[in-house]
Amino acid sequence: MSTVKLIQYEEASTEVQAVFDDIKETRKVEDVNNFWKALANHPDTLERTWKTLKVIMQPGELDALTKELIYLAVSIANKCNYCVHSHTASAFKKGMTAAQYQEFLAVVGMAHETNGLAIAMDVPIDPQFLAANGE
Amino acid sequence: MSTVKLIQYEEASTEVQAVFDDIKETRKVEDVNNFWKALANHPDTLERTWKTLKVIMQPGELDALTKELIYLAVSIANKCNYCVHSHTASAFKKGMTAAQYQEFLAVVGMAHETNGLAIAMDVPIDPQFLAANGE
Amino acid sequence: MSTVKLIQYEEASTEVQAVFDDIKETRKVEDVNNFWKALANHPDTLERTWKTLKVIMQPGELDALTKELIYLAVSIANKCNYCVHSHTASAFKKGMTAAQYQEFLAVVGMAHETNGLAIAMDVPIDPQFLAANGE
Amino acid sequence: MSTVKLIQYEEASTEVQAVFDDIKETRKVEDVNNFWKALANHPDTLERTWKTLKVIMQPGELDALTKELIYLAVSIANKCNYCVHSHTASAFKKGMTAAQYQEFLAVVGMAHETNGLAIAMDVPIDPQFLAANGE
Amino acid sequence: MSTVKLIQYEEASTEVQAVFDDIKETRKVEDVNNFWKALANHPDTLERTWKTLKVIMQPGELDALTKELIYLAVSIANKCNYCVHSHTASAFKKGMTAAQYQEFLAVVGMAHETNGLAIAMDVPIDPQFLAANGE
Amino acid sequence: MSTVKLIQYEEASTEVQAVFDDIKETRKVEDVNNFWKALANHPDTLERTWKTLKVIMQPGELDALTKELIYLAVSIANKCNYCVHSHTASAFKKGMTAAQYQEFLAVVGMAHETNGLAIAMDVPIDPQFLAANGE
Repeated sequence: MSTVKLIQYEEASTEVQAVFDDIKETRKVEDVNNFWKALANHPDTLERTWKTLKVIMQPGELDALTKELIYLAVSIANKCNYCVHSHTASAFKKGMTAAQYQEFLAVVGMAHETNGLAIAMDVPIDPQFLAANGE
Repeated sequence: MSTVKLIQYEEASTEVQAVFDDIKETRKVEDVNNFWKALANHPDTLERTWKTLKVIMQPGELDALTKELIYLAVSIANKCNYCVHSHTASAFKKGMTAAQYQEFLAVVGMAHETNGLAIAMDVPIDPQFLAANGE
Repeated sequence: MSTVKLIQYEEASTEVQAVFDDIKETRKVEDVNNFWKALANHPDTLERTWKTLKVIMQPGELDALTKELIYLAVSIANKCNYCVHSHTASAFKKGMTAAQYQEFLAVVGMAHETNGLAIAMDVPIDPQFLAANGE
Repeated sequence: MSTVKLIQYEEASTEVQAVFDDIKETRKVEDVNNFWKALANHPDTLERTWKTLKVIMQPGELDALTKELIYLAVSIANKCNYCVHSHTASAFKKGMTAAQYQEFLAVVGMAHETNGLAIAMDVPIDPQFLAANGE
Repeated sequence: MSTVKLIQYEEASTEVQAVFDDIKETRKVEDVNNFWKALANHPDTLERTWKTLKVIMQPGELDALTKELIYLAVSIANKCNYCVHSHTASAFKKGMTAAQYQEFLAVVGMAHETNGLAIAMDVPIDPQFLAANGE
Repeated sequence: MSTVKLIQYEEASTEVQAVFDDIKETRKVEDVNNFWKALANHPDTLERTWKTLKVIMQPGELDALTKELIYLAVSIANKCNYCVHSHTASAFKKGMTAAQYQEFLAVVGMAHETNGLAIAMDVPIDPQFLAANGE
C-alpha cells in the first residue's frame, strides 16, 4: 500500500543493484527490506541514505545494539509503525534479549509520561543542566 | 514560567520532603530538579513518579547509561525541551563522553530522516520483521 | 519573537477592529491575546478562526470547561507552548480548581505513557472496540 | 501484528492472572483488552500500569467521562491508533452520547489548527497568562 | 474501521447532500472521499470544513500544486496515514510528476533530520532570523 | 543555551573551516548560522549534512522557494522552533512575499485541523488513492 512502487532487484538499474548488493553483503541477508525497495525509485536518495546509515550505525564509541535501541526509541516517539517493526527486529538480530526489550519498553513508557508532564507544566530548565552540558 | 508553583523544600509538606530526601540521597545531589518541585503540587503524582522512575532507571538487563540514552532519544523525538536538557546532563553525569554524544546525535538525526521517509511512502512492513519479533 | 508583527488595535483596519471588538465583548476582556494580534496580519484567517472558535467553544452537549480541558490536552500532546499557557489560563478562568488541574495533569501523563507503550508494541485493536464505536 | 506475544489468561502466571482478575472485576468485563495481554510480558510493568491507571481514572475532582475525554484527546494528538479506538470505545461505555462525541471532535480539530498556527508564528506568551496560572 | 459511520449520499440529509454536490462539482468527481463521509456525521463541521478548504486551497498567491505539497508535508510530519495517501493522490492529480515527487520526498526526509538535530542540541535562534522575519 | 558549544570560525579546524567557507560562498553570507556552528562539534556530521542539504535544496524539478516552503511546513508540524525561524527567514530571502506567507500559514493551519480529525476518526483510505499513487 506504499505511495511508490517497490523496486525488485531483477527490475532495478545497475546503479540500484550495486547498492542492493552492498546492503545484502553488509547485512548478510538474501534480499533487502521494503524500505530500500521504496527508496530505489530515487537512486540518489537510496545511495546517500544507505551510505550514511552504514557509517552511522557501525560500532564506534557506542556499540551496535545501543545505537539500534536509540534508533528504535526515536522511531516509537515519532510514531513510525514501519520503523518500529524493522528496528525491533533489527535489535533482536543484534542480540537484544527478551528481558532487555522489556526494560527498554519500560524506559520508553516512562519517558513519554514525564515528557508529557514537563511540557504540560512548562518546567523551567535548571541552571545546572546548562552548565553540565558544557556551556 | 511554569504553569504551577515550584515547591521548595522548606515550604513542602513532610510527605513531599520525604520524597525529596530520597531523590537527593539516591542521586547524591543537594537539591532536587525543578521537575520534582513542579510535581510536588500533587504529592501522589510526585511519589508515584519518583518511585517508578527509581525502579525503571536502575541498572538491570540494560546499564544505567544505555537507559539514559533511550530516555534522551524519546525526549528529543517528543520535543520536550526541558527533558532534552535534563537527560543530556544526566547522560554526561552517568559517564557519556563527548564522542559518544556526537555519535548519539548522528543516530538520532538519521532516525528522524528515515522515520519521515517511511511515513511519507507508507512502506509496507516486511513479513520477516513480524516473525523476527517472535510472532 | 513571533515571525509576524503583532497588530495592535489602534493600527488595525476597521475589519480587524470589528473582530477584536467581538472577541473583547464575548470574553469580557480589555484587549485580545497575542494570538489574535498575530492572526490579524491575514484578516480572512482572523475572522474565520474567531468565528469558528466562538461557535465550537460555546457550551453545548459538553460544558465550557470540559471543552477547554480537551483543548488543553491536545495542545500539550502537540507541544504548543503558547497554547499550553493560554488554555491553562483559560481553564482556570472557566472555573478549573487547582485540585482538578492536578488530576488533569495525572491523566495527561498517564495517557502519554500508555500511548508510547501501545505504539512501541503495535498492539492490535480489539474487535469489540470497533463494534463499540458503532460500526 | 504486535512486537510481543499477547498473553492469554490460561497461559499466564498467577501474578499476571491476579492483575487480569482485578481488571475484569473493576471493569465488569469477561476478558482484558489486548493492551494488558501485551503488557503481561513484563509482570512488573503490567501491575504498575494497571494500579496507576485504576487510581488516576477513578472519579475524583473530575468525573470519569471527562477524564476519558482528556485521555482520548491526548491519544489523538499523539497519533496512537490503538489508543484512539480503545478510548473512544471507553468513552461511549462511560456514557458519551453521539452528539457529545461530535462536539468533542470539533474541539479536537480546532485545537490542532490553532496549535499549528501558534507554532508557525511563534506567538509570544501574553504576560497575563503567566499571572493567571498562579505565578 | 473508522470510529464513525461513513455516510453515503443516498442516506444523507438534504443539507449534507448539498455539500457533497458542491465537492463533486468543484472536484469533478463522481463520489466524495471517505473523509467527507465521516465528517457528514456532524453537518456543521462538514459544511464549515469544506467551505474553508475550498477557499484556502484555491490558487491565489501560491498555485494549487504548491499548496498541495505544503499540505502533504504537514500531513507526513503529523503522521496522518489517511492524509498522506489522500494528499499524495491529490498532488499527482494536480500535475505533480514522479520526478517532482522524488525531490519532494528528499526535502521532507532532510527536514526531518535537521529538525531532530536542532531540537536535540537546542540551537539558539540567530538574531538575524528574527530581523528577517520582519520584527 | 544549546547542549553543545557553538564553534566559531576562528577556533575551528581546517576541515570545519572548509565547510563553513563553502556555506558562506554558496549562500553569499558573512557568517554561518548557529545550526552549523553546533554541528561543527562533529566534523563528519557537519560535512555530510551540508553536502546533502546543498544538493537537495538546489532548484531542480521543484524551484528553490517551493522546496523551502516544504521544509518550513515539516518544521512547523515537527515543532522545531529553531527551524521555524530559520526557514521562515530563508523563505523570505528566496522571494516569498508577505501575501504568500499568509496563504502558506492558512494551508498549514487547515492541514493540522484535518490531520487531527482524520486521525481521531481513523478514516479508512479510499481505494482510488492507492491506485492514483501508481500502485
